Amino acid sequence: MTSIPAIFWLAPISSIFALGFAWYFYKKMLSLDEGTDIMKKIAKHVRDGAMAYLKQQYKVVAIVFLVITLIFSYLAYVLGVQNPWVPFAFLTGGFFSGLAGFFGMKTATYASARTANAARNSLNEGLRVAFRSGAVMGLVVVGLAMLDISLWYLVLNHFVEEPTAAQKLVVITTTMLTFGMGASTQALFARVGGGIYTKAADVGADLVGKVEAGIPEDDPRNPATIADNVGDNVGDVAGMGADLYESYAGSILATAALGAAAFYSFEGDMQLRAVLAPMLIAAVGIFLSIIGIFLVRTKEGASMRDLLKALGLGVNTSSVLIAILTFVVLYLLQLHNWLGFSFSVIIGLIAGIIIGQSTEYFTSHSYKPTRKIAESAQTGPATVIIAGIGVGMISTAIPVLTIALAIILAFLSAINFDVKHMLDAQNIQLGLYGIGIAAVGMLSTLGITLATDAYGPIADNAGGNAEMSHLGPEVRKKTDALDALGNTTAATGKGFAIGSAALTAMALLASYIEEIKIAMRHIGQTTLTLADGIAKNVEQLSIVDLMNYFQITLMNPNVLIGVFIGAMMAFLFSGITMNAVGRAAQKMVDEVRRQFREIPGILEGKGEPDYAQCVAISTKGAQREMMLPSLLAIAAPIITGILFGVAGVVGLLAGALGAGFVLAIFMANAGGAWDNAKKYIEEGNFGGKGSTAHKAAVIGDTVGDPFKDTSGPSLNILIKLMSMVSIVTAGVTISFHLL
Amino acid sequence: MTSIPAIFWLAPISSIFALGFAWYFYKKMLSLDEGTDIMKKIAKHVRDGAMAYLKQQYKVVAIVFLVITLIFSYLAYVLGVQNPWVPFAFLTGGFFSGLAGFFGMKTATYASARTANAARNSLNEGLRVAFRSGAVMGLVVVGLAMLDISLWYLVLNHFVEEPTAAQKLVVITTTMLTFGMGASTQALFARVGGGIYTKAADVGADLVGKVEAGIPEDDPRNPATIADNVGDNVGDVAGMGADLYESYAGSILATAALGAAAFYSFEGDMQLRAVLAPMLIAAVGIFLSIIGIFLVRTKEGASMRDLLKALGLGVNTSSVLIAILTFVVLYLLQLHNWLGFSFSVIIGLIAGIIIGQSTEYFTSHSYKPTRKIAESAQTGPATVIIAGIGVGMISTAIPVLTIALAIILAFLSAINFDVKHMLDAQNIQLGLYGIGIAAVGMLSTLGITLATDAYGPIADNAGGNAEMSHLGPEVRKKTDALDALGNTTAATGKGFAIGSAALTAMALLASYIEEIKIAMRHIGQTTLTLADGIAKNVEQLSIVDLMNYFQITLMNPNVLIGVFIGAMMAFLFSGITMNAVGRAAQKMVDEVRRQFREIPGILEGKGEPDYAQCVAISTKGAQREMMLPSLLAIAAPIITGILFGVAGVVGLLAGALGAGFVLAIFMANAGGAWDNAKKYIEEGNFGGKGSTAHKAAVIGDTVGDPFKDTSGPSLNILIKLMSMVSIVTAGVTISFHLL
Repeated sequence: MTSIPAIFWLAPISSIFALGFAWYFYKKMLSLDEGTDIMKKIAKHVRDGAMAYLKQQYKVVAIVFLVITLIFSYLAYVLGVQNPWVPFAFLTGGFFSGLAGFFGMKTATYASARTANAARNSLNEGLRVAFRSGAVMGLVVVGLAMLDISLWYLVLNHFVEEPTAAQKLVVITTTMLTFGMGASTQALFARVGGGIYTKAADVGADLVGKVEAGIPEDDPRNPATIADNVGDNVGDVAGMGADLYESYAGSILATAALGAAAFYSFEGDMQLRAVLAPMLIAAVGIFLSIIGIFLVRTKEGASMRDLLKALGLGVNTSSVLIAILTFVVLYLLQLHNWLGFSFSVIIGLIAGIIIGQSTEYFTSHSYKPTRKIAESAQTGPATVIIAGIGVGMISTAIPVLTIALAIILAFLSAINFDVKHMLDAQNIQLGLYGIGIAAVGMLSTLGITLATDAYGPIADNAGGNAEMSHLGPEVRKKTDALDALGNTTAATGKGFAIGSAALTAMALLASYIEEIKIAMRHIGQTTLTLADGIAKNVEQLSIVDLMNYFQITLMNPNVLIGVFIGAMMAFLFSGITMNAVGRAAQKMVDEVRRQFREIPGILEGKGEPDYAQCVAISTKGAQREMMLPSLLAIAAPIITGILFGVAGVVGLLAGALGAGFVLAIFMANAGGAWDNAKKYIEEGNFGGKGSTAHKAAVIGDTVGDPFKDTSGPSLNILIKLMSMVSIVTAGVTISFHLL
Repeated sequence: MTSIPAIFWLAPISSIFALGFAWYFYKKMLSLDEGTDIMKKIAKHVRDGAMAYLKQQYKVVAIVFLVITLIFSYLAYVLGVQNPWVPFAFLTGGFFSGLAGFFGMKTATYASARTANAARNSLNEGLRVAFRSGAVMGLVVVGLAMLDISLWYLVLNHFVEEPTAAQKLVVITTTMLTFGMGASTQALFARVGGGIYTKAADVGADLVGKVEAGIPEDDPRNPATIADNVGDNVGDVAGMGADLYESYAGSILATAALGAAAFYSFEGDMQLRAVLAPMLIAAVGIFLSIIGIFLVRTKEGASMRDLLKALGLGVNTSSVLIAILTFVVLYLLQLHNWLGFSFSVIIGLIAGIIIGQSTEYFTSHSYKPTRKIAESAQTGPATVIIAGIGVGMISTAIPVLTIALAIILAFLSAINFDVKHMLDAQNIQLGLYGIGIAAVGMLSTLGITLATDAYGPIADNAGGNAEMSHLGPEVRKKTDALDALGNTTAATGKGFAIGSAALTAMALLASYIEEIKIAMRHIGQTTLTLADGIAKNVEQLSIVDLMNYFQITLMNPNVLIGVFIGAMMAFLFSGITMNAVGRAAQKMVDEVRRQFREIPGILEGKGEPDYAQCVAISTKGAQREMMLPSLLAIAAPIITGILFGVAGVVGLLAGALGAGFVLAIFMANAGGAWDNAKKYIEEGNFGGKGSTAHKAAVIGDTVGDPFKDTSGPSLNILIKLMSMVSIVTAGVTISFHLL
């Protein structure tokens, strides 16, 4: 057991702080009044529906986890091709990820009626309740992730036995990646299941309610309206929580693993410092996020502009402070080239902001692209769809170029801009670690950015509650304002989520190559004879040696086949989830139409709609449809590995990353732009509400729903999950291709 | 000057045969009666409009060609970083490609009224006229390509001077790739410009005519109807001709270049045989296509089933014969491992057929996927769009897996299944040549498959002519039957086009690496010091040496950045073309609405619509919008090369190939499925014509139009053009990164 430096304890302490403040905000929120009896009743309906769904989902996911854990145990204990800690790490990762989603949703479902009730008093009070409740989610996610990371580090540091300290750290960090796989698996189910649930309900409610019957959103006469509100919670809250837990933990873990590899041959305890660096940057980010959250306060009678400023103050202060404190932390850590790596953090932060700004430009109706989509609505639904797809595809350029630039700059900064030797083995590893550090930097303020992101669905649900409780249009107007504010901040949040996914996936790709070495040792391969005839000890293999040995070049047909299959996987996965939403939504449409037809007086508000039936349809649809795409994502890298070896897997991951990243941006932005084009028309442009243009725009928005809330965000997880699966099952691939 | 083996002359002779029979069919078609005066008048309208557009387009393209030629001349003669033949080869490639489109369109515009007139007598006569006219196009494309290839081979063989015969062949074959770039450039303009023209007119005509005014397709009261018919000719005929000319020539040229490289060190004249092999397979394919075309005859009173059988007999006979004769040709050629390469040809043929079958399954309304889309039309346009996108994305799986399998099998077959040594330098080169041979095999029967493909638009236009000439519904019904038949055979054609594009692009990727060596010599770099310190003569560098020297592995950040940008390019390009169609279509909608509003009595058939105005709008839209995407495709590889070097370019090409191939299949199949879902409803299902489901399906079809006829097919060319540009400008990249 290696001694643990004092500075490490910053990580678990930050976790305790995060969870403590989350608990504090949660309790304060619970102490507020939930409003009138009918508000309480409706909130309870939604809460019960959401909890019932989540329980059902966790049951299904638990079975999947059980099966995978058994397989991993077999691989680890019977075949011996896997690390013995893998099954446990996998389970905890999934458990904590699920917990993050669960706590977030519990908070959200308790907060919605309270937010509506607070908004009855003032906009400002509404903001405070919703934002602080969103902060619970943000802090729970970062707190649990840091707790999981700290605990596993302590456990593995205690138990893992290796000949040298350097080897031990490599084994510890790559083992910890396994709990990243657990988190990703759970997140994928949560995103896909929740995404199908919410969009089936939303699309169904909109198509019949808004388009056909002409009743407003969240109208209690619409039988799908409770399901719709439940959906917001299970999709946008629980799904997003699990998703970002996975992103956050994944970026820290992958970077730590790259640090252990890049600093393997360094003198003293430099390797340990490199492993701790991402955790410490994240820990500092947590403290700054808490400070930022407290900065978000407005005076009574604050305008919309003031609210936005208040949120901006919190987020920007955290970001600026982390940019400064990174230099301090890495300097105190005495990390090799600490200045260069500090710049990598800043590059990550700036890249996240640029992608957020670009998302904002392409999806907000303050700018030309979305207005053009709204304009094209005048010529009907077909031109709206064509325009939205066009804008979505074009909007991929800036994020991709930004990430490309961030990759090369973070890489070069990590090697002191030694361009001439950038492709030397040691420099490649340092550079890749720099890319990982940039991803950690991008996500370091997640505590507060997620708070501004998560409060959107809470405000949305508060609006639903207000509408169904007949609180009158003035309350609804206030919750709508909060919701709109959330949409603006959500754009930045999305930028960080997508950008960090790309960088983390790159880091995971590099970790996969590292894992190959450990996998070789597990199957008893201690030396490898390279092309020049020299036999090297497996531990001494550089990343360039491995690339050459497995010929992971773009002329190796196995690599190219992998690239093709990876790109295809992104499309196949999206297609399956799109179809799942389509199928479930169609059932919902049929059911709502049936109720309108058969229940007497329903549209006059006299007959009681059968909400439960709609909830049941969404639940059943989501449960049935989430299995295939999720299992496909887990199976693809394993099968590719068995058939096409290490080269095929790396090709698969690169292809999925390239195509999946671009496809994810396209789908998210097209969906966002359609949504806001509709809102722009609703504000009175091109004929306003009820015009032909509006009807066309509603169709665009409906198509965009599964784009932006089901398939698009799931792709981020897909890319990373496939990498994680490859890493964890590297032993299987290797034993098929080396033995 | 090297002596030319007698068997080479088979290539120019096949070309003369193809062009001769094309001339014969053309003359026979011209001798037929064009029908009534009004039929002649309308045909002349369409013909003049199409020719006027084509002239306008060629003028714009000529300027682009002039500029690029000047740049190439500067690079070749002033800077000396390029082969001196490049500017001429580039020009001829563009010229012949344009000529193929021009002849095809000329034939089609003369044939449409004659087909309609023949259909007045019998379905059978209509088929004969349309099919033989389609055959003109097929034979002109393969004939001109073979002529261009033969001539350039003779010219370069005469003039190129190199120290050894082996080096000479490498220079000849890579120089010939330049005319492939000319063909691709011309093809991209033709596809994008024609695609925007035709879809702007089509979408505009449909949206106002069919959906709003409720008048049928091709109704003379619709002002956009002439533009729509002109569009079919400039997009589906001229565009497709240029496109397939480029595919056909590109696959032969890339394979010849790979042959020259793979057989560089072989004894005797084996290298020459390897270079001739793809030309000879193609030449034999031409003869067999002509035989196949003559086999397509039906008896009087043949049923639809008989017609399909007749077409199938022609195509299948050609395919079976080429499969057999390939063995004979390669055996007589005494090509090294002739048996293995013959199997590569067959693998290519089979892969093409499987992809065609899969296209058929996902887009024909005889099968479940399209019927499900039709079913989802009952719940409105939004669910139709979601279902179509879902089906399109899922439909990418089979083609991608087929191509992956074809790649590995063609590769392994080329090296006698020596799996253990498949990644040795020599075997990689032989294997890549095998992949090229598979692409040539897939396209070898293009003469007849293109005939079955090109006759579709002719039948479509014949229908337009019949409708506008008031020939009555019975003639229209016959031309519709011919059109439907064309749709079925077109699916197979599309499979071959997409599949061969993927294989050819792979071959071009390998050719790029070869070209690097020649580029090095051009800038005076005669030796290269490899990683192990050994200096090698540039000519002796193997493909593995180059991969290692430039570190084209997936851990090189330049490669990964390239992959990202390549994937993004596919989306950006599609987005720009989608938006172009949307913009142009919107102008058309406004114009048609204006005419319906302002011209008195137009809908009662009393007022004369202003057809010319609609033609002008489409022309202007296409001209303006085609420049940006096309120039982007040319600029991207050059800029990437300058910034990120050889590694960046290879990454770019791999990323564009992976994402572009999948995106192309998605767009083509989604578009096809929407089209046929609409037709399925029109046949009386789910409420039939005029129902809500039908209206929703028409919107789906309209969205699908630019998917399947503008963006989708352009992507095939984009992928190859970027490869060609990289190859031709390799000297620029190298001089930035080696000097």
